[in-house]
Order: sequence, then structure tokens, then C-alpha cells
Amino acid sequence: MISTANSALLDDLVTANHILVNEGVLDGFGHISVRHDKNPELFLIARSMAPALVTRKDIVCCNLEGQVIDPHGVTSYVERFIHSEIFKVRPEINSVIHSHSPAIIPFGVTGERLRPICHMSGFLGATTPVYEIRNSVGENSDLLIRNQSLGRDLAKVLSNNSVALLRGHGNVCVGVSIQQAVYRAIYTENNAKLQLQARPLGEINYLSDAEALATAEMNDQHLERPWQMWKRNAQNAKFS
Amino acid sequence: MISTANSALLDDLVTANHILVNEGVLDGFGHISVRHDKNPELFLIARSMAPALVTRKDIVCCNLEGQVIDPHGVTSYVERFIHSEIFKVRPEINSVIHSHSPAIIPFGVTGERLRPICHMSGFLGATTPVYEIRNSVGENSDLLIRNQSLGRDLAKVLSNNSVALLRGHGNVCVGVSIQQAVYRAIYTENNAKLQLQARPLGEINYLSDAEALATAEMNDQHLERPWQMWKRNAQNAKFS
Amino acid sequence: MISTANSALLDDLVTANHILVNEGVLDGFGHISVRHDKNPELFLIARSMAPALVTRKDIVCCNLEGQVIDPHGVTSYVERFIHSEIFKVRPEINSVIHSHSPAIIPFGVTGERLRPICHMSGFLGATTPVYEIRNSVGENSDLLIRNQSLGRDLAKVLSNNSVALLRGHGNVCVGVSIQQAVYRAIYTENNAKLQLQARPLGEINYLSDAEALATAEMNDQHLERPWQMWKRNAQNAKFS
Amino acid sequence: MISTANSALLDDLVTANHILVNEGVLDGFGHISVRHDKNPELFLIARSMAPALVTRKDIVCCNLEGQVIDPHGVTSYVERFIHSEIFKVRPEINSVIHSHSPAIIPFGVTGERLRPICHMSGFLGATTPVYEIRNSVGENSDLLIRNQSLGRDLAKVLSNNSVALLRGHGNVCVGVSIQQAVYRAIYTENNAKLQLQARPLGEINYLSDAEALATAEMNDQHLERPWQMWKRNAQNAKFS
Repeated sequence: MISTANSALLDDLVTANHILVNEGVLDGFGHISVRHDKNPELFLIARSMAPALVTRKDIVCCNLEGQVIDPHGVTSYVERFIHSEIFKVRPEINSVIHSHSPAIIPFGVTGERLRPICHMSGFLGATTPVYEIRNSVGENSDLLIRNQSLGRDLAKVLSNNSVALLRGHGNVCVGVSIQQAVYRAIYTENNAKLQLQARPLGEINYLSDAEALATAEMNDQHLERPWQMWKRNAQNAKFS
Repeated sequence: MISTANSALLDDLVTANHILVNEGVLDGFGHISVRHDKNPELFLIARSMAPALVTRKDIVCCNLEGQVIDPHGVTSYVERFIHSEIFKVRPEINSVIHSHSPAIIPFGVTGERLRPICHMSGFLGATTPVYEIRNSVGENSDLLIRNQSLGRDLAKVLSNNSVALLRGHGNVCVGVSIQQAVYRAIYTENNAKLQLQARPLGEINYLSDAEALATAEMNDQHLERPWQMWKRNAQNAKFS
Repeated sequence: MISTANSALLDDLVTANHILVNEGVLDGFGHISVRHDKNPELFLIARSMAPALVTRKDIVCCNLEGQVIDPHGVTSYVERFIHSEIFKVRPEINSVIHSHSPAIIPFGVTGERLRPICHMSGFLGATTPVYEIRNSVGENSDLLIRNQSLGRDLAKVLSNNSVALLRGHGNVCVGVSIQQAVYRAIYTENNAKLQLQARPLGEINYLSDAEALATAEMNDQHLERPWQMWKRNAQNAKFS
Repeated sequence: MISTANSALLDDLVTANHILVNEGVLDGFGHISVRHDKNPELFLIARSMAPALVTRKDIVCCNLEGQVIDPHGVTSYVERFIHSEIFKVRPEINSVIHSHSPAIIPFGVTGERLRPICHMSGFLGATTPVYEIRNSVGENSDLLIRNQSLGRDLAKVLSNNSVALLRGHGNVCVGVSIQQAVYRAIYTENNAKLQLQARPLGEINYLSDAEALATAEMNDQHLERPWQMWKRNAQNAKFS
């Protein structure tokens, strides 16, 4: 099934791994997937490894039960159910990123909600929900989304939003394309940094709901511009 | 009309694009322009693209209505009206920078005003105005300066200042030369970082108005020194 | 005795020195040791030098009295007693790191305790003790762990924990392997950064004790993944 | 007179310029000097230029009136009087650094005093004085130390300390050698960053006066270790 996937899509998936490391969204952990362009019941993701080191030959194909079906016997990430369960219930979504993007963590463990502070992050909308795994399995877990049941609970909390936080763990960003998901992951981190800086200055004047919507639509017209720059930066950084 | 522009000026415009990315003022978005040295009713700016990737052949020439007139048919930035409208009403200004320079954003969305905290940023003067687009078009916009009318409103708020903030969006810095505008853009970001750090320490002793004026005049004598360093840094970073 | 040590272990020790500098844990000071694989009463550490510059030929062998026994006459770090005294009382521990890792310092000099804010740092557990050298030798010391007596006092405060802070000085991280100690040193710094950022946002929802335990066990299964990435990063940075 | 100076001293002065840029103490502005090793009434400093670009041939020799005496006709920094006046009244001091090192600025414009938060910065001692130029020339100046009279006033405020801040401007660090002055400049910046981070966590337990003294003496034994590392870093960064 990997052999039937669009070759440029596979290249973009590898590039996205490197971009997300180079821009500080991923470190040694985290992952990005893309829905198979020939079969919406399949998705492509790296085998279990550091995203900085991913190459074309490390991409595997999973089904929506989270099973690696090609190549046979290779292991992907423990948390691949984040991807499979979101792909199941969000047919318009074609790319999912799970990261521990640092500045976002504080918004999952305090009462402060992540909200769009500028026009680059209107996609955050009015709500950035926080998934609390204790509501699924109590206070004894290792916080990982280890199975379909946890993936389903997370997907429910994500609902129709672009981004959800995982308390004490990280976040998930989704997009209609790799480019949109990467854009959202990077600008969610940027928004978090800005909100952390603005907080001590007093009340923050966030985007209105209508502004969030309008800016999100506007930015979707310009995804190729930063993608080309991030790609060049990652290439200069000599990944894999 | 590009062919009649001073060749060193075009080189400086390309270099300024790379410097502003390398020093963290621009990311994949934002732009810098310079007034045409042979015709004050024209200005030079890149076509619509990431500033890190700009080369000489990407420079286009616009008139003060914000229309690209050379080469025919090329598209420049949606927000080129920021440049055209400021060039219209500020004849002494020859370079305009619009950026989303990160540390400045918090000062556009809170009650805290950006003020000169040290002698490198005296050009900020007593006032750093904030443009609120809601006063022009209400709460439903995508925040972009998409037309002459919005550019005019922004230019009015900028008035005779060196820098104006755009709420939830970014800022605009102007200068008599590319070198002065670049200096101001970089040190406005630096001043914002320092003001964010000093804020939790208690009341801040800003420059007096006379000190702001005197330091601004003094720094204008030394623009070439950091320009040469930033240029070298950008060249080492191997842009475009 | 150095000649009898596992060659890959010595290579890992050199690599760990470079990784810890490259990831911002060590600067010109600080050190990492590993217990000799053939003799648990010995440990390997660099001679007294900047960790960025350490090579295989700079490794020396010490006994648990903190004496360099091979090669004869070479001097190691003044604070080698941190290592010798911990190796004495923690037989399961095979690697010790002492650093001035910056974001951790504030938690040694204020009432704020370092606690696990996310699943990557569950190894911090419920307690991150702070060693106060004034309790050992009063208010006149140079804060260094200069002898066995101070090393013993520090080891007592560390007790069975993974990490202890030294007030106004730095911290010590321990692990069953070089890879685990390095992982803990890097993620202790990361946790400190996140806790500093989250603090102004209000009350923090830390990992429960059971979550800390479960995540620590889980992460121990994945130490090789970030190690390979950090190693590659250090190699790209061309150390020594 | 430059020809009579120790050649290694001149090399160290060039290296120190690059180190201070590479470690974030200097940007396009600021300067370091060293007293002439053959004549204590002379000192060596770069001509007026960005420190990143300084080479051996850019070093000039000044007398303690702040006049460039070799080579004839070359201009050095406007603020060379910082150096000449400190060399005049501090015979034990052989190197002076003036910088706008960023994290230090907030401590010059607020009521918060810079104090030693850890053992690396014991040289700060109990007092880090702040020079207020308004006490010398009122509220209309450009803040620069433009003449002997201002240099004298600053030297008085510095008194016997290692570091003094200049309100809204920067700081001055002094040492018995280039290596000690560079060490102090870098660790003053580090201390400022740590104090800014610790401030929101509550009351800070600073070094006692005796600890500050003891750690300062101890660190003076280890100046060569970080110097070699910083030198290597600057060489890798390919300055000048």
C-alpha cells in the first residue's frame, strides 16, 4: 500500500517530520501522519523513531484500527491511535500531528485557556479544549493514548476544533493537508509563547470569533509561502 | 522602472529582507519596501513570497496607488497598501517595514504601551500608537490592510511616529533609509523583549522625552556599524 | 583500569559530555561519570576540563574515595566527590551528572519546588530535594562539594531520588545508565522551563504520584530514541 | 606602541571581541579594552567598529586621556572614556568591557538590584551599583559617556566593584585580565537571566557576603577552562 501512495505526498511527510523538529515543535518524540491519497481508510506515518531521522524508507502504512499493515512486522508509535481515531471521525482531516510542543504545555495544566492572540492563529477559534486522561482511566495512567478507547475519548474532546491539548502531555493539531497541519502546529506554539508573554501585562484583547474565522480562511490561502521557507530551513539543517 | 533604480539600493533591499529574517523580525510573512531613488511616486518591494527567499529578480515596482507597474502581471503582497499610503503622506520616509515581530505583539493587545527602555530605542519617542482595525471596519475583518482606505487609516494613526502597532497583527516601522528602518525594526523588537522582562520588577524608569530625542539623533550617526554586522550574519546564514 | 573498560561505554561517556553541552545542560563546567563495567568500586570521568572538549584520551579512572588511580598524576574535577559518594550508597546507579543547568537554579533558591509538570519528567517523583550546604559548613563556603564529607551529606539529601538541587549552585541527576542519566538531566531542565512559564498562570496541576511512577517506567523503555537524536545533533555540532 | 605590546595579548583581545558577540554580551555595539603590558598609562581597544568584525589590524592604542595615539588619525569609540577613567583609578584592573548585555538592562531601570544568585557570579558581591547619568548632566543627554568628566563620575559609582550598571544604557565589567573580565561579563548576563526567572517565584536566597567572596576567589582559579571553550565556539562561528 505504500507503493500506491503519491510519491510527492511521501516526500512531504518526510519533510514535515524535519520541519517540525527544526521549528521546535517536535523533539525526540511526537509524530505526524497523512491519510493515504488512494484509500481514506489508511494512513501513512513513520515507524517508531525520532522524527529528525525519518527518511522515505521509514514510512509505514496503518489502517484505521491503528494496525501497521505495510510493511509487515514493523512497529510504529505506541500512540498511533491518536491518528487512527481522529481519521475515523473527521473525514475532512487528512493530516494529524501529535507533539510535546513546549510553550503549549502550561495551558494544559493551569486554568488559562489558549486563545488566538493574533491573526496568524485564528484557526484556534473560540475554544481550545483540554483532554484530561483521568476522566478516561483515573489517576494511575502513564498518560499515553495507548489504545482505541483512549484515542476515541481524545477525538471526542477535539470535536470539530483544529487543536486540542492533552493535560500534562502535549497537544494534537489537525489539518486538511500536511501543509495546513504543520502551519497550525507551528503557529499554535507561537501563539502560546505570545500569550505567556502578554499575560503579566494585564487583560488580553483576543481576536473576536468573527476575526478568528476570517483570519483562518485568509491564512489558508497562504500556506505554501511559509512551507517553502520551513522546507529550505530544514534542508539547510541537514536532517536524516 | 526597476531598471532605472540604483543597483546598490536594490541589493540593499534584498539584503534587508534576509537581515530581517535572520534577526527574527520577519518569519514567512512581512515585507520591506524602499522608495524609488529616481521617482518618489514609486516604490520597490518583493513579489508575494517568503522574505528569506527574495533575490534581485523578485523585486517589483509599485506606484502610490499600490499597483504593481513593473514587471507587468506580477503579484506583490496583499498588504502593499501599508507602504503606498505611508509613502504618500510621509515624504521624508523612504523605507517601510511591516512585520509580525513577536515580542511586540503583546503591546498591541494589552494596556501596556511600548516605551523606550534604553538608549538604543530612543526613536520610539513618547508615543507608540496602536492601530485598531475595528475602528475602521468593525469586528469581522481578517485584520489585513487590504486596500487604500485601511492603509490611509493606519498611516493616520502612525502620524509622525517611527513605529505603530497593529492590534493582534504586528507593527510597521519607517525610516529615511533602508538602514534606518531595519535598525528601528530590530531595536523595537529588542525594546519589547526588555520591557517584557522588566515589567515584573516594578515601575520602569523610561528615557525622558529629551533623552529619547537625543539618543535617536545619536544612533542615526551609527547606522552603518550594525548594518555591516547584520549583513555579514545574513550572508553566513546563506539566504536565497 | 581504563584499558579494561568497555570501549563502547567510553565512547558513550565522551558523547554524553558533548550532548549535555549541545542541549544546554552543561556550559564550561559540570561533569558526567559512569561506573566501571568491570569493577563497581571504580568510575570513569574526564580530567578537569570543559566538557565540550573531552575526547577518549581525557577520560580518567577514580576509586570510590574520589582518587584518580589511572592514569597516575592526572587531576580530575574538584567536585568528583559528588560522584564517588553517590556511587557508594546507590549500588543500582551507574551514571551521575552534576550541572549548573540554568532553569533549575531558581528552584534551589526560592520556596518553589520542582515537580513533574508533564509525562516526560515523571522521574522527578513527588520530591525534588534541595541540598543546603550551610547545613554542613555554615555561611562561609565556596559552595563546592570539595571532600568526602560534603559528598556524603549531598548523597543523604539525594536519598533514593533521581534528582537533587544544590542551593545557589546547580543539581545532580543519577541513572542506571549514561542514557538514563542524560535523559533525566535534559528533561529536568525542560521541566524547570515549563514550570517557570506556567507559574504566572495560576495553580499547576502536576502529575499524580502514580502518574509520575507510571510515566517514568514508560519513558525508560524509550531512552534509545532521543539518545540517537542528541548524538546526531552533537556530531553535527562538531565537538572536540 | 601597538608594536611593543605582547602579541598573545593582542590575539586575546581580538578573540575576546568575538567571544563576547558569540555569547550574546555584545551586539553591533560595545567594546573591550586591555591595559598595555609594557606601559600602564596606555590601553588597547578596537577602532570604532562592530566587535564581531575586529581583527588584529583594527586594534588602536589610547592614553589615559582617552586619545588615540597609535596609529595616528584613527577614530575609536565615542565612549572610550569609560575605559580611560577606570584604568586611571583602578591600577589593579587591566581589562574593561562596556556592553548592552540584554538581561542586565532591566536591573538598571527598576528598583530590583542585581545580586549573586549562584556560585558562578559571586564576584557581584553585595552591591551592584547603578550609574544615573541624570545626576551628572540632567535629563537631556544622549546617555553616552562622551568625555572624561562623565567617565570619572561613572568610575566613582563603580568604586571597587566588579560591575556597574548604566541606567537605560548597559553596564561595565572590569577584571585583572581579559579572561577575568570576559568571565564576569558572561556570568553577569547569566545571573541577570536567572534572577529574572526566579523573581516571580518569591523571595530569593542569595549568596551570603562570605559565600560571594569565597566563590569569587574559587572561580578565579578556573578562568582558563571556560575561556578555551568560548574561544573554540567563537572560532567555529567564523568571526571576521
